[in-house]
Amino acid sequence: MDIEKVNSMDFGEFVDVFGNVIERCPLIAAAVWSQRPFSNLEDLEKHFFAFIDALPQSGQEGILRCHPDLAGRELQRGTLTAESQREQRSAGLTSLGADERLRLAELNAQYRARFGFPFVLAARLSDPAAVRRELARRLHRPPAQELRTALGEVKKIGHLRLAELLGAHPATL
Amino acid sequence: MDIEKVNSMDFGEFVDVFGNVIERCPLIAAAVWSQRPFSNLEDLEKHFFAFIDALPQSGQEGILRCHPDLAGRELQRGTLTAESQREQRSAGLTSLGADERLRLAELNAQYRARFGFPFVLAARLSDPAAVRRELARRLHRPPAQELRTALGEVKKIGHLRLAELLGAHPATL
Repeated sequence: MDIEKVNSMDFGEFVDVFGNVIERCPLIAAAVWSQRPFSNLEDLEKHFFAFIDALPQSGQEGILRCHPDLAGRELQRGTLTAESQREQRSAGLTSLGADERLRLAELNAQYRARFGFPFVLAARLSDPAAVRRELARRLHRPPAQELRTALGEVKKIGHLRLAELLGAHPATL
Repeated sequence: MDIEKVNSMDFGEFVDVFGNVIERCPLIAAAVWSQRPFSNLEDLEKHFFAFIDALPQSGQEGILRCHPDLAGRELQRGTLTAESQREQRSAGLTSLGADERLRLAELNAQYRARFGFPFVLAARLSDPAAVRRELARRLHRPPAQELRTALGEVKKIGHLRLAELLGAHPATL
């Protein structure tokens, strides 16, 4: 899909295609449509990220709360979005043993209790050992720093999803 | 459901219950959770509305773009949210004749082309003749005024959905 095709979309098509660039936040794609035309992938992406950066802290936390746990209940129940399902599979999180799953569930619960949002990581770039290590490491960081890190992961996920939709090679992250 | 129950919810439960108070915008419920505890329905509602009011214009237009047309394609396809389905049914929009549906579709398309968002109306308070009349009337208004009116309808819909969830009698609108 080239950028002319993107710029020709009405808002219904645009939200259908880009509505999950930010997980379960079609509102953001729907807002970004106001900024068309876009000159290229980087320009389109810039508007998604600027919208996130301009939100109050509660809205940024809200974005994180729309993400599922990694290897969590929604994966077990089959209620992940198609994008999350692919990403968690590519990180090997769909084929964990029961012990590994339980250990991650405990760390996820500790993280949620501490920060008030779920642990978010660009899973496609990871594997089960790295997820566990990152979770254990980030669990003890100061909340303001962790919010920034988590939003950085939201942007990495968004970058990879946008690059895939536009058939582009993702930039080095 | 009383307000103590609401205040005891973790963010996952809160988003499950209130995620569609603003149509297809769980981000907003997820952000509002940051403001707990809430003293009552009015207080809870105030935080939803304050979040909407604080968004840039693109974000407010984005909220509108997450709404379906009345008697439109999503109703035909059965892809409305449960709340929208009930509201459109209670306004008699699920049992229109083909001529009435076509006439509304034409007006909806004109409205979308003019304003860049769909026609939003608190359908539960309406009926097919009133929907058609309102659509024809609002179609010719200045865009800035129409954006304010449309966001007022989003808040009426949110008020009715919140009041239903909390088992309260909706205030006069």
